[in-house]
Amino acid sequence: MSKGELDFIKWIRKITGKRDEIPIDIGDDAACYKTNSKYQIITTDILLDGVHFKSENVSAWKIGRKAMAKNLSDIAAMGCYPTYAVCSIAFPRARSISYAKKLYLGMKEAASKFGTKLIGGDLSSWNDKIAVSITLVGESRDLKPIRRSGAKVGDSIMVTGTLGGSIITKYINFTPRVKEAITLNKNFKIHSCIDITDGLVRDLAHICEESGVGATIWDYKIPISKDAMKLAKKTGKMPIYHALYDGEDYELLFTVSKAEAKKIIQKKLATSIGEIIGAEGIYLKDISGSIIKLHIKGYEHQFG
Amino acid sequence: MSKGELDFIKWIRKITGKRDEIPIDIGDDAACYKTNSKYQIITTDILLDGVHFKSENVSAWKIGRKAMAKNLSDIAAMGCYPTYAVCSIAFPRARSISYAKKLYLGMKEAASKFGTKLIGGDLSSWNDKIAVSITLVGESRDLKPIRRSGAKVGDSIMVTGTLGGSIITKYINFTPRVKEAITLNKNFKIHSCIDITDGLVRDLAHICEESGVGATIWDYKIPISKDAMKLAKKTGKMPIYHALYDGEDYELLFTVSKAEAKKIIQKKLATSIGEIIGAEGIYLKDISGSIIKLHIKGYEHQFG
Repeated sequence: MSKGELDFIKWIRKITGKRDEIPIDIGDDAACYKTNSKYQIITTDILLDGVHFKSENVSAWKIGRKAMAKNLSDIAAMGCYPTYAVCSIAFPRARSISYAKKLYLGMKEAASKFGTKLIGGDLSSWNDKIAVSITLVGESRDLKPIRRSGAKVGDSIMVTGTLGGSIITKYINFTPRVKEAITLNKNFKIHSCIDITDGLVRDLAHICEESGVGATIWDYKIPISKDAMKLAKKTGKMPIYHALYDGEDYELLFTVSKAEAKKIIQKKLATSIGEIIGAEGIYLKDISGSIIKLHIKGYEHQFG
Repeated sequence: MSKGELDFIKWIRKITGKRDEIPIDIGDDAACYKTNSKYQIITTDILLDGVHFKSENVSAWKIGRKAMAKNLSDIAAMGCYPTYAVCSIAFPRARSISYAKKLYLGMKEAASKFGTKLIGGDLSSWNDKIAVSITLVGESRDLKPIRRSGAKVGDSIMVTGTLGGSIITKYINFTPRVKEAITLNKNFKIHSCIDITDGLVRDLAHICEESGVGATIWDYKIPISKDAMKLAKKTGKMPIYHALYDGEDYELLFTVSKAEAKKIIQKKLATSIGEIIGAEGIYLKDISGSIIKLHIKGYEHQFG
């Protein structure tokens, strides 16, 4: 998310104000509304050719799959069950209907894998590039949606999987952490959660900002992916740089009490990478104990 | 909707099959799913620069307003109450944040007017044209969603408002018939309904196809708009041609028993324009009694 996009969201929240009937409003991974006594979750994401994928390099099936998976990841970040999806597609006139079918099958495959049904959509042709927007509805059932804003001072900061270098393949073929999110939300008291799309530091900053806290992360604890190491050889940067700043990992970043963290580590569900602190800012601590304040910057893919 | 787009939907329905847990599936104005004992309705539409509007000629506010109104019209076609909306926007990098704000305010205005809350969204920047996708959720409350497939032989075919020439202004500033739809669904037994987006003949064909019936319409009963007459002077076509084939009227086209039609006419809620018949096809009857079979063709805007 660019600074302009963030400013835009801030402006929307300002002019909208607090709406009591909407328990979770603009600015979280998904919004939340009530039907009878049940919570419904809703999220939407648009994937753009040249921004989130390059249609020259990636098959229609993979584009469809990713569009659905990205939305599933947002529902996962809320610790909820995805249920129904609709899609709307801006479709280049030059592409064939068989291309649209492959796109659809990719979406359907990703949805089915997580018990989600694609129940409607809109396909409209134009002379420009492909854009795929998916809206996903989910429900909390017996659970409570997890917000970004619940992090508490003293919380352990935890992350699933490994981070960095997603541009090599993970950005297109990641598995949304739906199952992990439900397991975590069911069995542990998760204070806050987000999925890593803008990069570890940036997304941790989102949690901190929403919760009014700061964070210290330990560089030697961050689970660095093999692809981050591979990429580092090309870019000349340190692997940890990629783990900190690369986007589109689609792992869950969450905070829990230290006691809960212990149990989660025992079950090998996630890694503890730091601690929520009262002071503003995101700090990186190395094994010698020296601390630097991290620059909070966003990530934009450099394709090519 | 182009033939390719229609074929695509047919293919989706074929590979999807019948899903009992989804009372209204792909191919209606909105899909329908159950939460507890309540029906939820969901619809999505994407509006594209150069296809549904031209950003050179239309303000951001009007684009936003139309994007929301188009989705509201889909919920109206189901005879349901719109409740919550999310939007996702492919946003040209060259445009300012103030443009995005105006777009948002247009969406919000249209939503608020019909008791709908905009609760989330995604804005993503690219170097191409603007595309606005909105997903709207609605509920049936004490009513039953109206489908396209319920038309019965002998039904009166009715339409709200006047038709044709929407390209002059109505395509951008129409009022979605949400209130009229609720009034109709509450007080009368509506057998089938659709909103006119592809044009009267084409959308009537949608109802007929879904219901396994045909239709006769009377040319002297069709409520022709002033703009259809104005446009006819330019195009050299008959005003009725525009009323039959122009798209984006966003009026309700529905069928009811003749007894219900009488009451609806008395209340001045709609005009009766024809009758559902057993034979396949759409026929136009003139005042002398002569009948022609209408060509079912789609409508695409010719801007400029």
